[in-house]
Amino acid sequence: MTESPDEDYRRAAVDLLGAIAYGELSAFERLVEDAKMAPGIGDKIAIGAMATSEFAHLQKLVGRLEELGADPAEAMQAFQASFDSFHAHTAPSDYYEGLIKAYVGDGLAADFYREIAAYLDPETREVIIASLEDSGQTAFIVERVRAGIAHDHRLGGRLALWGRRLMGEALTQAQRVAGDRDSLTALLAGGVDRPGLDLAALGRMFTRLTELHAARMAELGLDS
Amino acid sequence: MTESPDEDYRRAAVDLLGAIAYGELSAFERLVEDAKMAPGIGDKIAIGAMATSEFAHLQKLVGRLEELGADPAEAMQAFQASFDSFHAHTAPSDYYEGLIKAYVGDGLAADFYREIAAYLDPETREVIIASLEDSGQTAFIVERVRAGIAHDHRLGGRLALWGRRLMGEALTQAQRVAGDRDSLTALLAGGVDRPGLDLAALGRMFTRLTELHAARMAELGLDS
Repeated sequence: MTESPDEDYRRAAVDLLGAIAYGELSAFERLVEDAKMAPGIGDKIAIGAMATSEFAHLQKLVGRLEELGADPAEAMQAFQASFDSFHAHTAPSDYYEGLIKAYVGDGLAADFYREIAAYLDPETREVIIASLEDSGQTAFIVERVRAGIAHDHRLGGRLALWGRRLMGEALTQAQRVAGDRDSLTALLAGGVDRPGLDLAALGRMFTRLTELHAARMAELGLDS
Repeated sequence: MTESPDEDYRRAAVDLLGAIAYGELSAFERLVEDAKMAPGIGDKIAIGAMATSEFAHLQKLVGRLEELGADPAEAMQAFQASFDSFHAHTAPSDYYEGLIKAYVGDGLAADFYREIAAYLDPETREVIIASLEDSGQTAFIVERVRAGIAHDHRLGGRLALWGRRLMGEALTQAQRVAGDRDSLTALLAGGVDRPGLDLAALGRMFTRLTELHAARMAELGLDS
């Protein structure tokens, strides 16, 4: 039995929404966990506000998954192992590493999903773009990290290394996910009636992601 | 120097708001922490929704603290040790204990604060009452706990004991807080132009709290 292109497309959209939704859920959990290392209650409140805004995004994605007739928990489940493995490999050892992970990791994920969303139907694309909106709370992270480095210059070197490590782990997991999920590979490859990414376009996308990552690191006062 | 009754009152209101706000912050953190024991992604999302609604309450309390000219983090700080001690003494050993702690603990705290809010100015009272609103997500807990007991009857006995332990620890910490904070004791005792609680009224309040606790336990299918 050959499935219709429509069903292939629906499956890819469900996969992508499931991946982003699980990513938001795990980011929410890790942010709250990492906030334990915060030096004071003011910082905990700031990080809690970031975490709850991630969670609000998750709820929109869950809504779209339901509209597409998918079981949200099931769609998310498929990506649990990859995200959990990413987090296990990037457990921050102090408060600053946690802040950078939140800033750089969420930024990288957002850039990547925004690129892929271009290949989706307008409704799904809109939900995804809205779910990636920065709620402006990251200014707090930039301020904290810059102050930390000003206070202790060696911190900058260590955190720059940490940023590179985060980028490497994220790429490793993203490649694994793409390799495991045929639907996502097919989505990117395109179809008879849908434009896809050729190797050159994939290369340009990678360049854009790297540049945006470098800009975020510079914003924090760190080499990339 | 004798402080004006107004200043005494303001201090008590700031104390009470600070206590509730820190309580919400720690409940938020513990809920997310305890959600790690959830059996699936659907449950994690349900608990995450409860946690983020706690956090939204916290933000309203922080706003009222600022209106009263207080530093929210400082007002909350005074209650950190008591709440942290409560949580350290009541770390759930499994998912069900975590659910009951969320349901019974938050319910008890809400009843208590609602009683005390009666002694406050209308604006502060309204913020507190609004911050205690049950967002209806607790139906999920009742359903889960009842299903768990139906599946394993021994669970009911263990969880009933756990509920009594939570009540005992909460009372211990509440007494400690009241003893440590003169402003709160003074608030409850009343003043020349404000009615207070005499010993008989305090007894009636305690009876009401115990009855409401028993009703919640019964709702879960547990003896109190």
